[in-house]
Amino acid sequence: MPILCKPVVAVPENIVTLDETLDMAKRLHADNPKLNLALRLIRNTGVLKRHTILPLEETLRHPGFEERNLTYERHAKKRIPPVVERALKNAELNASDIDVIIYVSCTGFMMPSLTAWLINTMGFRYDTRQIPIAQLGCAAGGAAINRAHDFCTAHLGSNALIVSCEFCSMCYQPSDGDVGSLLSDGLFGDAVAAAVVRGHGGTGMSLERNGSYLIPDTEDWISYAVKETGFHFRLDKRVPTTMEPLAPVMRDLVRSHGWDASKLGFYIIHAGGPRILDDLCRFLGVESDAFRHSRATLTEFGNIASAVVFEALRRLFDEGEVENGASGIIAGFGPGITAEMAVGSWVGDPVETAAKARREAHVPVS
Amino acid sequence: MPILCKPVVAVPENIVTLDETLDMAKRLHADNPKLNLALRLIRNTGVLKRHTILPLEETLRHPGFEERNLTYERHAKKRIPPVVERALKNAELNASDIDVIIYVSCTGFMMPSLTAWLINTMGFRYDTRQIPIAQLGCAAGGAAINRAHDFCTAHLGSNALIVSCEFCSMCYQPSDGDVGSLLSDGLFGDAVAAAVVRGHGGTGMSLERNGSYLIPDTEDWISYAVKETGFHFRLDKRVPTTMEPLAPVMRDLVRSHGWDASKLGFYIIHAGGPRILDDLCRFLGVESDAFRHSRATLTEFGNIASAVVFEALRRLFDEGEVENGASGIIAGFGPGITAEMAVGSWVGDPVETAAKARREAHVPVS
Repeated sequence: MPILCKPVVAVPENIVTLDETLDMAKRLHADNPKLNLALRLIRNTGVLKRHTILPLEETLRHPGFEERNLTYERHAKKRIPPVVERALKNAELNASDIDVIIYVSCTGFMMPSLTAWLINTMGFRYDTRQIPIAQLGCAAGGAAINRAHDFCTAHLGSNALIVSCEFCSMCYQPSDGDVGSLLSDGLFGDAVAAAVVRGHGGTGMSLERNGSYLIPDTEDWISYAVKETGFHFRLDKRVPTTMEPLAPVMRDLVRSHGWDASKLGFYIIHAGGPRILDDLCRFLGVESDAFRHSRATLTEFGNIASAVVFEALRRLFDEGEVENGASGIIAGFGPGITAEMAVGSWVGDPVETAAKARREAHVPVS
Repeated sequence: MPILCKPVVAVPENIVTLDETLDMAKRLHADNPKLNLALRLIRNTGVLKRHTILPLEETLRHPGFEERNLTYERHAKKRIPPVVERALKNAELNASDIDVIIYVSCTGFMMPSLTAWLINTMGFRYDTRQIPIAQLGCAAGGAAINRAHDFCTAHLGSNALIVSCEFCSMCYQPSDGDVGSLLSDGLFGDAVAAAVVRGHGGTGMSLERNGSYLIPDTEDWISYAVKETGFHFRLDKRVPTTMEPLAPVMRDLVRSHGWDASKLGFYIIHAGGPRILDDLCRFLGVESDAFRHSRATLTEFGNIASAVVFEALRRLFDEGEVENGASGIIAGFGPGITAEMAVGSWVGDPVETAAKARREAHVPVS
């Protein structure tokens, strides 16, 4: 089974605190009749800070769609390579060992996508497959994992590199004053993530089953209005209710793998917002603490779109508490409304695991 | 092996002839010092007509990026469903038999992509996977075939639907007067294509091996400049020289399958332009006639981006001359510069094939 190795996530150096976010909303939307509702919703997100590629005052100025995309490109080229280098190191692979690059990003648009530049500049083979995905939004983290899983299954022994580059601040639209936009102005953050899926070997999550689900007739609940000024994020107030239809889908997928979704060893869930996490906990019948890595990601970085699942997974790795063989699920949610789900087991470090097994069994090392 | 079944391609009802194209260029760019060069290049494309979703005069007016994308969406929703219905019928499948929709389009941008709308309106299952790709340009037709191949290999017995929606006229930029832009104004056309890859059964091309190649350091040879006015196509004059480095890559891929690239039974090649086809013929050592379906596509529809390979393949099906078991290759070329290649054999209609074998062996039917 392909193994999803430890991700690397980097956030930019500019920080926007919750207080700054609230001040900004009050200052820029003083006359908006929905301001108080928006402020309450922003406070409820539990996002204490976000990181952005540009300082706050610069982020608030819209220099035009062209300039925004050029900024996206410049920062992507600066910020992605060190993250990719470390992700390769985590997987104990070189660039030349990678067979496919899956690049997910919905916050800037380039053609060709950055896959071509990465291959040209970072030592990837010229026959590396390129799978750029721009239209799955926050679900694209889960989708990237699932397509990497599929690729490594179809091409045995192959390795996949996933890169998620989300500069959500580049979609800030000063002119948008609806509640969904005001909320998203206080919710999203910037980040770059990378992770390797190894076809053979490695430690991490063994990818064993994947699935996707579209909630019927919710196409316009999360969407972009594409305008001269770029991508305008549209968020319907019904989005927080989506865990009720999605929880049974997740339960069924886990059950088809012979497991019980209420009793998994780990949960890596897209942190779209606090209610998403609270509801899913409740509908799956798991303790709130089971989603602690998603909650911590949301609190410290905001919703970093397709990068959330990688940051939550990184925290799980760093915590170092997952038992070898533990069952788990990764689920990303995004426009469609689409859920992308991956089910698998934990494969710990073979040496560590063996040592731990010996300690627990009180068997002296021979 | 998964089978790529007979594609369906539809072109819009509005026709732009070569003469109209030349007149338009003379009228709109009378003062352009490069006009005569552009006119010569346009004549050399051999494109006798293109089809566009809007009448010519309307196409020439740029109503803004937002309006363009809304036009793209409206026409996509009108024109894709009948093409998909017929592609499903060609494969003798229903919408509910499809496990993944691979949607490729570089000429309009939506999030969510049309995959969500297709699932909601055409009877696809809600657990259908969605793979929308917007950033591989003309190479995306080949990429879609290869990702469908991978998916059906990873998920045995699955079926993939490929949809290619290219309204290149929605990228016409009146303000662009460089030679590459003038040429592309006379080269590209609109089309919608769909094809099914069946995991089991079906007739068509058995997908047996796939590969991708990026020509080093050519990222900016084919690209979009993304501006307030939308996607501005950038075409470097060195693009026609790319078959020299790509031909050996294609030869190697075919050789790794045990075949000789100069002696295949069929060739489905992206018709980027006439020199691409002429050069590749020469470098591969095949007769000009081997690329007849690509040439006919170019002449009658222009370069229809990721849809070219499906239209050339449709013509191959309609010609009805491919021997059962014949070897072949599909190759799409696009930004990167990326080549996406699929190698496989022809699987004719089992009944027809058996009947033919009996006729050829002069064995009486028992």
